[in-house]
Amino acid sequence: MQELLRSLKLDTGGLVPVISQDIDNDEVLMVAWMNAEALRLTVKTGVAHYYSRSRQRLWRKGEESGHVQKVREMRTDCDKDVLLMKVEQIGGACHTGYRSCFSWVLKDEKWVEDGNKVFDPKQKYGK
Amino acid sequence: MQELLRSLKLDTGGLVPVISQDIDNDEVLMVAWMNAEALRLTVKTGVAHYYSRSRQRLWRKGEESGHVQKVREMRTDCDKDVLLMKVEQIGGACHTGYRSCFSWVLKDEKWVEDGNKVFDPKQKYGK
Repeated sequence: MQELLRSLKLDTGGLVPVISQDIDNDEVLMVAWMNAEALRLTVKTGVAHYYSRSRQRLWRKGEESGHVQKVREMRTDCDKDVLLMKVEQIGGACHTGYRSCFSWVLKDEKWVEDGNKVFDPKQKYGK
Repeated sequence: MQELLRSLKLDTGGLVPVISQDIDNDEVLMVAWMNAEALRLTVKTGVAHYYSRSRQRLWRKGEESGHVQKVREMRTDCDKDVLLMKVEQIGGACHTGYRSCFSWVLKDEKWVEDGNKVFDPKQKYGK
């Protein structure tokens, strides 16, 4: 694990951006961040763990919603400063209820909602 | 354009990370960064422009290699702090000669090359 960590270029905050991609249809689901501990737990358990920059803490994707990501493949790029995971996504990746966080498309310089709603966030998170 | 820029959350350096994805087969090709000017030029011309953090300058993808990215769709996520572009990729996205920059896969905690070589970087860049 130390060798794996040394092979990556973490940013000045010790983080690396991580893209998750649906292993079934290659849809890009979300981007989040990992620190060394999140990466270690992800590799060890096979389910995605991230580091929340806003909450400044480690989180397991789906710990509240149940929408876990089972990691089937992990890749990196030529600079070794971004990770790409192919995942089996349970439920939706996005807290808004969409399957993918990238559910806004640019039309005439405005963002228009364009996604696949798979759950009701009010019901799921009770807010 | 001002409204589009205001709708995005740029980082403290005025940049936003951008994922490009092959419009034909949904392969994730690369991640690079845009500042306001790179985004403006991309929207205006329909070909990808980025801001290089290492070279600290604007660049048009393919300006040296000819491997331009024609932008067919632009998306953003629920936080409006990452862009996802579906592109028509001419040649290879990666300066190493691979079609995708994400041509290293994790096996037993080591990165193993696993990609589709589409050009010879020595011949293309003369180095």
